[in-house]
Amino acid sequence: MKIAILGYGTVGRGVDRIITERVPSVEVARILELPDRITDPRMTASYDDIVSDPDIDLVVECMGGLEPSHTYILSALNAGKHVVTSNKAVVAAYFNEFATAATKTGVAFLIEATTGGGIPWIAGIEKVRRIEDVNSFYGIMNGTTNYIVYSMLKDGSDFGESLSKAQELGYAERDPSADIDGIDVRNKTIISATVAFDVACTQDLPVTGIRTLTKYDLDLFGSRDMTVKLIGRGVQKDGRYAVAVEPMALPTASLEANVPTNFNLVTLDAPSIGTLKYYGQGAGSLPTGNAIVQDIIDCEQGRRPVYDFSRGLAYDPDLLRSDYVFRTDASVSGASFYEPGAVVVKGLTAVEARAKFEEALKADPTTFMAALVAGQES
Amino acid sequence: MKIAILGYGTVGRGVDRIITERVPSVEVARILELPDRITDPRMTASYDDIVSDPDIDLVVECMGGLEPSHTYILSALNAGKHVVTSNKAVVAAYFNEFATAATKTGVAFLIEATTGGGIPWIAGIEKVRRIEDVNSFYGIMNGTTNYIVYSMLKDGSDFGESLSKAQELGYAERDPSADIDGIDVRNKTIISATVAFDVACTQDLPVTGIRTLTKYDLDLFGSRDMTVKLIGRGVQKDGRYAVAVEPMALPTASLEANVPTNFNLVTLDAPSIGTLKYYGQGAGSLPTGNAIVQDIIDCEQGRRPVYDFSRGLAYDPDLLRSDYVFRTDASVSGASFYEPGAVVVKGLTAVEARAKFEEALKADPTTFMAALVAGQES
Repeated sequence: MKIAILGYGTVGRGVDRIITERVPSVEVARILELPDRITDPRMTASYDDIVSDPDIDLVVECMGGLEPSHTYILSALNAGKHVVTSNKAVVAAYFNEFATAATKTGVAFLIEATTGGGIPWIAGIEKVRRIEDVNSFYGIMNGTTNYIVYSMLKDGSDFGESLSKAQELGYAERDPSADIDGIDVRNKTIISATVAFDVACTQDLPVTGIRTLTKYDLDLFGSRDMTVKLIGRGVQKDGRYAVAVEPMALPTASLEANVPTNFNLVTLDAPSIGTLKYYGQGAGSLPTGNAIVQDIIDCEQGRRPVYDFSRGLAYDPDLLRSDYVFRTDASVSGASFYEPGAVVVKGLTAVEARAKFEEALKADPTTFMAALVAGQES
Repeated sequence: MKIAILGYGTVGRGVDRIITERVPSVEVARILELPDRITDPRMTASYDDIVSDPDIDLVVECMGGLEPSHTYILSALNAGKHVVTSNKAVVAAYFNEFATAATKTGVAFLIEATTGGGIPWIAGIEKVRRIEDVNSFYGIMNGTTNYIVYSMLKDGSDFGESLSKAQELGYAERDPSADIDGIDVRNKTIISATVAFDVACTQDLPVTGIRTLTKYDLDLFGSRDMTVKLIGRGVQKDGRYAVAVEPMALPTASLEANVPTNFNLVTLDAPSIGTLKYYGQGAGSLPTGNAIVQDIIDCEQGRRPVYDFSRGLAYDPDLLRSDYVFRTDASVSGASFYEPGAVVVKGLTAVEARAKFEEALKADPTTFMAALVAGQES
């Protein structure tokens, strides 16, 4: 099988190296690169050279960003070429359009590398769904924010120091907003929900990050045997679904609370298989490159995921209802005392909690919010 | 595809139900059952009816035990029928023979359900190996012993009480020896090593269980922020390998230490993918039945694992070297003080530690031994 790679950054180079060294049945025939960076006879600056080449069976997109990735992926699928991508932003935004195009031309649209890096999470969900529905999923899907919490707890450093350390280690971007505001987890949660529930949910998703997390908050929850982690989750029940991204206070004896450094831990639950958890490197060029190559090999062996959005799962925020703690100087309606400086509101949906959080931020921009998991109610 | 099920206990019935309800492309055409239990037109008491039936493409063996399972599996493979089995004892004993027969007739020999129950562990190792070698694996592979330790820590009950509770809950057999003496983990470690390293290791495997574990031991390690778990593990390096089954003292902040009730947690490590962990139900009719059905669907889709034992990996116990703690009244050579009633011996191979343990048991039958993980050295 001949493939083309769009984008020759660390991931693209990693894919090229792994394929060349270890997958003799696949040939990296073309590489899309900027005109002033062409150093290899396989390289071209014209996407048309790739998409119109009948010898190219599969296109690997690892450029990132919405455009031109969106246009390139779509035209590859429409041209009858399989697509493998690590670009979570473009997949979260256009999953439905991509999946529909892939179904129409009978090609594979494979996205393992978008979510959970090297963890076989997407293929794992698909495998479970061959036998039964997935009831729910949740997990730590962002290594940067996990590292920040880990470092704050371990070294006693504050949020800013831990973020700087994460940046030094290459775990965080120079602009860390996508990580600490939950945008990265939002994209991965949309993708996970789409694969798990066949619902291309691009809206109705309350998203709260950990930008305002302080050592005081960690101590507060620590005194109640809990740790804060940024969690993406989704649930479906009786033709309805809900999804959310927010900090959650989890028992210190949970596996999630003990995930070190920048690792990810994602969980699904289904009726007969029960609870399955997957742990691994959620980012990095080698794990991500590895996930892309696994998708390429799967494609060669005939894997063709099919998404059926026709059943039109209804969004019902009532499915995710928790008690929420707000550490804030603002007045929060319906709240009762939790710990000094913090209040709790019982039985909110994630959407209601997000609205209260936004309201509180206006009066106190340092406000932090976390959901309590069932069984940890105040 | 038409299949036959050998053994109609809870797992066999679960497979029949899942296939019938959810996998329309597969038909359970025959079931091997005892003569006095035949209640269904698909049932026969004669294995010959099944193995000589050209319409049967695949045989599911879930009878357990060495014979007649060994003979039945082998004759199915030789007759060109795919085999899916949950029988860890027979696979651990005859892996090489089975894999060789399957390769000869070009059929699939699939064993997901033998190890880690519903956890996609075997397929996960195979998937990693499509790209690179697995350096090492380790994990909690036995739910009964995990439950016993969990219960001792959580409820403060002693070993016997916790074992009784495990038996009440259906987690432990009436004769719990295979679990608490590490035989079950031994079989799963052999199978994992065979899949991970292409080495059919049926000997040279030091096996120690947790039969002599006491609350005193858990307190002793607890005071040093460690928990004891029964661990199966294997490592390969430069054409050599080592495997062991023994109690290990793990940091309380490790994921392994926080695995609750009867769950399993298995880990592999490979150069580019890094550390991957899989968590789930390691036993039970539904997860095990689920794993069998996944293998059947994989087989239908063309999965044909190939094992290559020809490279003849050499056994080298030196690859697994740890410090070992012995809680014993016996005198242990080379030991120094660790805690009251307990000594430590540094830098033993698992084989050397097992020999010292057997020696100590002669003088003090209550002796308990645990390996310290690297970084936890005394």
